[in-house]
Amino acid sequence: MRRQHLGQASAPRLSGLTPWLGLVFFLAAVAASVALGAKSELPSWTDADARRAIIAFVDRVTTRGSPDYVAPPERIAVFDNDGTLWSEQPMYVQLAFALDRVKALAPQHPEWQEKQPFKAALEDDLKALAEAGEHGLLELVMTTHAGTTAEEFAAIVKDWLAEARHPKTGRRYTEMVYQPMLELLAYLRANGFKSFIVSGGGIEFMRPWTEQVYGVPPEQVIGSSIKTKYEIRDGAPVLVRVPEVDFIDDKAGKPVGIHRHIGRRPIAAFGNSDGDFQMLEWTTSGAGARLGLIVHHDDGDRESAYDRKSAMGRLDKGLDEAAQRGWVVVSMKGDWLRIFPAD
Amino acid sequence: MRRQHLGQASAPRLSGLTPWLGLVFFLAAVAASVALGAKSELPSWTDADARRAIIAFVDRVTTRGSPDYVAPPERIAVFDNDGTLWSEQPMYVQLAFALDRVKALAPQHPEWQEKQPFKAALEDDLKALAEAGEHGLLELVMTTHAGTTAEEFAAIVKDWLAEARHPKTGRRYTEMVYQPMLELLAYLRANGFKSFIVSGGGIEFMRPWTEQVYGVPPEQVIGSSIKTKYEIRDGAPVLVRVPEVDFIDDKAGKPVGIHRHIGRRPIAAFGNSDGDFQMLEWTTSGAGARLGLIVHHDDGDRESAYDRKSAMGRLDKGLDEAAQRGWVVVSMKGDWLRIFPAD
Repeated sequence: MRRQHLGQASAPRLSGLTPWLGLVFFLAAVAASVALGAKSELPSWTDADARRAIIAFVDRVTTRGSPDYVAPPERIAVFDNDGTLWSEQPMYVQLAFALDRVKALAPQHPEWQEKQPFKAALEDDLKALAEAGEHGLLELVMTTHAGTTAEEFAAIVKDWLAEARHPKTGRRYTEMVYQPMLELLAYLRANGFKSFIVSGGGIEFMRPWTEQVYGVPPEQVIGSSIKTKYEIRDGAPVLVRVPEVDFIDDKAGKPVGIHRHIGRRPIAAFGNSDGDFQMLEWTTSGAGARLGLIVHHDDGDRESAYDRKSAMGRLDKGLDEAAQRGWVVVSMKGDWLRIFPAD
Repeated sequence: MRRQHLGQASAPRLSGLTPWLGLVFFLAAVAASVALGAKSELPSWTDADARRAIIAFVDRVTTRGSPDYVAPPERIAVFDNDGTLWSEQPMYVQLAFALDRVKALAPQHPEWQEKQPFKAALEDDLKALAEAGEHGLLELVMTTHAGTTAEEFAAIVKDWLAEARHPKTGRRYTEMVYQPMLELLAYLRANGFKSFIVSGGGIEFMRPWTEQVYGVPPEQVIGSSIKTKYEIRDGAPVLVRVPEVDFIDDKAGKPVGIHRHIGRRPIAAFGNSDGDFQMLEWTTSGAGARLGLIVHHDDGDRESAYDRKSAMGRLDKGLDEAAQRGWVVVSMKGDWLRIFPAD
């Protein structure tokens, strides 16, 4: 936790004063520093309701002797990824990855030139892709995400992320992460929390980079997955990715994924869409102090404005029920002074 | 890491000597302290090959500048549970639990009096149980482990463990853990390792007590599992345990479970049976310094002697291949000064 030491800036003015007056000024400077020090946490957050609710919650669960005190091992927080930690517009980053994989693999699959949904992917025909529906997208993901070993796949993801650029901003996708949420992750970590990512996206698409970008190690990443098979190839063991769904970590799947991986109920949950509804519901219906928070994409100028009618990151029920459930709704427009680290 | 400071005991002898001689004695005492200090780690282990191999490995991966240095986040160790951390004879603890659950639930199931494998369980007829085979045991586990919420099941396990006693020693099962392995867990923890349990046993049978007994939190426990369903009951969300296999964390399933939960390859693996073979194989075939270790149950006096022909914890291939694979085989008889904490 950084603290601003404004006392240093005002020190020269003290020369010439009596030591007693100097002490008074010094103490006043310390008091100002402490008061302003609180503000140096979550610096990209407006000093308004959302930020205050986060800090009040953390104070309640970390203050020894408080009736809401929570021992460090139980300080579990869960974060959605797409739209909560990084941008999901104009399309999920993993979908952009899958489309690029289709193009990279196309020379070995001449039949894709005439076969949907591959034809649509090769032609960047998003309308035809949408028409292929959930089943078509699943086929796309299976085909482009399976067939390699786990280690090969991680290398493919890393190489792609090093080169790929967001279609609108031209930035790397790992630069399209939300600065206020990076600060929130760091603030919770400094207060003894263990944070997990709980995403509908692919677990093996996230793990290669979450430690570097978010400070969240692979064992704290939960996501959707395809199956993996252990086998010996040329005398060496490998884990091979099989084109078969293992787990869908979305909606009611999120509490199940949390239970499977963590084995205890989180005390704080952060999401942005109705895909996170059950995760927030599960987290905030436990006993004691709880924090549920929804990032509301209402800033069309600096990012994107979408909620009830969006195809990706649709937020409807969450908006309707947030108030009655005591969930904090963060306005990206009003609550965030900065959106991306490079802003 | 505790270190014995024998130098303190010999300090009085220095009085009367010249300062120069005093320095020599002081340095000698420090040297002795350092040499003996090493012995205070893993105190229940004989100072022989197995203990030395463990310490040499930990030194290699934790010494900065060493070519085998491993950064703390990559210091992942995996431990089997049954037969590696606690006793699995005369039967898996979880099987004893399942048999007691059948008895507890029998009043609600009059049909069990005549139906196998329940009849065998009610009559403690281990021979008939064995004849029911894997399918029968699976039916027993499904029936006795499902149908409750996850929270209810955790409470049932805790209550049972507080009362149940090992049939031979009369001790609680949580007292039938191996003291040298507790020391090993603590030693690795002190050296920046994160240890996971990777067991063929049920994940939800272990999580309620591993933190207290082993210092391993629930999110670092991997095991076999049945499915879980999220639903709303009387307005409150619950996770309901469904009688359907989700994952079998045994043999080739262990590397798959490790990959699923941890997402990176461990550098040290500890097992006791051929069910752990692939876990050790996967761990030790990675690049850099690796440690594979097998606990060999060869102490019929203090615990149990079994390996190649055992039904539970069968160790055959592991014994055959340990030498060529560079795995350490621990003789409980020769390498362990003490077996259980209360010994």
